[in-house]
Amino acid sequence: VTFIGASTDPTKWGFRILANLVDGGYRGKIYPVNPKGGEILGWPVFTSVSDIPETPDMAMITVPPQQVSTIIEECTAKGIQSGVVVTAGFAETGDEKLEQELVDIARKGGMVLVGPNSQGIVNTKHKLYPQMPPIFAPEGHVAIVSQSGNIISTITRQLITRGFGCSKCISSGNEADLHTEDYIEYFANDPQTKVIASYVEGVKDGSRFIEVARETSRRKPIILLKGGESDAGVKAVKSHTAALAGSDAVLQAIFKQTGIIRVNTIYEMIDSALAFLCHPLPQGRRVGIIAAGGGWGVLATDACVKAGLNVVELPPATTEELNSFMPAWWSRGNPIDLVAGIFGEDYFKVIETVMKSPVIDGIILLGMMPALRPIRVTPTMNEEDKKRMQDDIDTGITVAFDRIAEISKIYKKPVVIGSELPALSEDFTQQLNKTVAAKNYCCFNMPHEAATAFATLARYGEYLKQR
Amino acid sequence: VTFIGASTDPTKWGFRILANLVDGGYRGKIYPVNPKGGEILGWPVFTSVSDIPETPDMAMITVPPQQVSTIIEECTAKGIQSGVVVTAGFAETGDEKLEQELVDIARKGGMVLVGPNSQGIVNTKHKLYPQMPPIFAPEGHVAIVSQSGNIISTITRQLITRGFGCSKCISSGNEADLHTEDYIEYFANDPQTKVIASYVEGVKDGSRFIEVARETSRRKPIILLKGGESDAGVKAVKSHTAALAGSDAVLQAIFKQTGIIRVNTIYEMIDSALAFLCHPLPQGRRVGIIAAGGGWGVLATDACVKAGLNVVELPPATTEELNSFMPAWWSRGNPIDLVAGIFGEDYFKVIETVMKSPVIDGIILLGMMPALRPIRVTPTMNEEDKKRMQDDIDTGITVAFDRIAEISKIYKKPVVIGSELPALSEDFTQQLNKTVAAKNYCCFNMPHEAATAFATLARYGEYLKQR
Repeated sequence: VTFIGASTDPTKWGFRILANLVDGGYRGKIYPVNPKGGEILGWPVFTSVSDIPETPDMAMITVPPQQVSTIIEECTAKGIQSGVVVTAGFAETGDEKLEQELVDIARKGGMVLVGPNSQGIVNTKHKLYPQMPPIFAPEGHVAIVSQSGNIISTITRQLITRGFGCSKCISSGNEADLHTEDYIEYFANDPQTKVIASYVEGVKDGSRFIEVARETSRRKPIILLKGGESDAGVKAVKSHTAALAGSDAVLQAIFKQTGIIRVNTIYEMIDSALAFLCHPLPQGRRVGIIAAGGGWGVLATDACVKAGLNVVELPPATTEELNSFMPAWWSRGNPIDLVAGIFGEDYFKVIETVMKSPVIDGIILLGMMPALRPIRVTPTMNEEDKKRMQDDIDTGITVAFDRIAEISKIYKKPVVIGSELPALSEDFTQQLNKTVAAKNYCCFNMPHEAATAFATLARYGEYLKQR
Repeated sequence: VTFIGASTDPTKWGFRILANLVDGGYRGKIYPVNPKGGEILGWPVFTSVSDIPETPDMAMITVPPQQVSTIIEECTAKGIQSGVVVTAGFAETGDEKLEQELVDIARKGGMVLVGPNSQGIVNTKHKLYPQMPPIFAPEGHVAIVSQSGNIISTITRQLITRGFGCSKCISSGNEADLHTEDYIEYFANDPQTKVIASYVEGVKDGSRFIEVARETSRRKPIILLKGGESDAGVKAVKSHTAALAGSDAVLQAIFKQTGIIRVNTIYEMIDSALAFLCHPLPQGRRVGIIAAGGGWGVLATDACVKAGLNVVELPPATTEELNSFMPAWWSRGNPIDLVAGIFGEDYFKVIETVMKSPVIDGIILLGMMPALRPIRVTPTMNEEDKKRMQDDIDTGITVAFDRIAEISKIYKKPVVIGSELPALSEDFTQQLNKTVAAKNYCCFNMPHEAATAFATLARYGEYLKQR
């Protein structure tokens, strides 16, 4: 990788992005370029691209806007075939001519470009992290392409918090040369990628986008967050990435036709991605809700109905079987309220009883505490006791997830969990998230999140069947 | 406090709730009652209520449903004036007669009842935590009344995670005697309470509810989450708390008329509560968005428009002043994209420049990183370096919040922040949340959360003006 515009000034992106490339542990060679020469972060600085002793695979470019064309010319002369232009100040500020010039020079020289106005790219497998923020996601199966760099940062941080990682991140910027659809096409064939997450402000080549999305959706889910829904949002988009946001109604039709999963918030994007990574697709929309708390059951029911799921009546056989071991005052309906009276082995028995009903396509399970031994926390307990108790919870949770995953596998139906992980501190939550993620399982926080995730799985399952 | 139905079995609520009462550090006397006598958790057990040597202020009741009436009779004979009935198996399972019996006996004896089917209550000032889950929220200014106990747990945990606490929590259960509106009326006059959060499945005395809500809303905001919006949800409510959910359209009209702030999710409830605790009310709906990332600005703009806010044009004077120090390629519009080119002192200068514009009623600020010194994180950095760097971030964040709070105070307009706190681990996030909360400030995660919170403030401000 050559880094053109390398700097020793720690406040400049020419230093900060280079530092992330170095710090991230990239194992290949790095060739910083700056007319001043010298050394940066242990790497000798070349005064020009032509001086580099071999042909780099990729050029990171952070020089001022007026110099980018010249640099790209030098890169093509050197035989470099791909470049990431971080530099901003092109179409998004009105200079479309300068932007087109870059593309023309690059194409003539056989070079493809990411950006301009890109935050950088990430390839976790190669420990390649030349991007603005110092975020080093572990390897994972979510590929991200986003017309906003900061939204990549948010998505990545959220994935890490939940115990997950990603395969590739592309901050596509103004998309002067390569477009979102080009990256999606690449992700479709990328063995590291199982789910594609994309933030899009506008699509430049509509028909190709549709073609690629349709082709990709039958193999991997594409989750899309659209920026610029409102008139004010469209205006903001114009000055952000110069994208033409287009009519939202038209886009909505395109999304439906191509199987794209549209989400409304970044939270929904993360929840959907984890749902696809961790759960089988349900055969339909009929959901059984099991709640260790009546209020959670009510909220999940409302959210399910809103999301188009069917909270079906339990068949008599299921109700009868539950009667045999549920407390006398249980609700005898769906949602199944555990009425603060079901613990331990019975908890799993409820799940299995509902799961085997032929009218149920999957379960939303709210609350994990009944699976654990009762705990006594005190506000004044010492660190040692806290640690011991957390270990106890941790073991219990691990066993519970194993049991639930097993039931899900036997019946080939998803069990989507909505529960706060019972951690004594945020630090433990992080640890628990990792434990759960290592089992390729996930845990949503809130009832409405579990419902939305289930609905996403169901809709994608229906799309695949229609195809 | 007398605890009737006390148990030594750690799997029973008669032990677990009592343990939370003891562990929570309640400083008054505790009188466990169980016919078997003995000692539990260091307190001698009385074989009957009549044997207690003084008149307790309150009775916690966890005996089986058929025994509750008798116990209440004994309590009234003893002169006890308030009771919390945890026991379930009354109206919610169809036994309305048994439930009415409790109320009749209690009223005849001059005793008020919480529940039945209550999870318990909390009063943080008195360290009184007799409730099912071992959650010990610190003192704070949010009062919670909820027809679901588990939703109280979720709200409380979320408040704690964000660094906040609560004043009182009431799990009102079936509301056979005291209703949601009674608790709201009490909270209206409670000096510890600044914001009221309520989860409601149904209202039993509509006209009194409206009267109390109207009277309370002019003094303190009431944030309400309604369970049972859908037909399936209404059915779930019936078997949960036996509440009559009523027509959602009618309720919506009532909420509007009474100034109640209706939220759709628990996240929105928490965000709204923190917004009220930490921000002044804006004078109108005109918002300035400052984003350290174009995508965040676009998403916030869409969310603002959806929430009924007005992302106004910047007046020429503001644009000109910003021109004087913003990078040449800045967007010259609202949202104001900091285009990865504004750091340190200039960051606060942007905030102040926008703040002083007369067309702006408040600011949504996305991203805190530009306020901090550039940092170099590496995936392999040692614990000591991590700690040192986090201290550095922590200090920077503290200073930044102070500066922003000061600007907010000078111009008497809210600056609602949406930013991931730049922490190196979840543990530090918790710490940062506490630091921020200690300053009576809060930080939302996502652009749409900041927008929703701002809109909530604006709507409540309008309601107060109309009154």
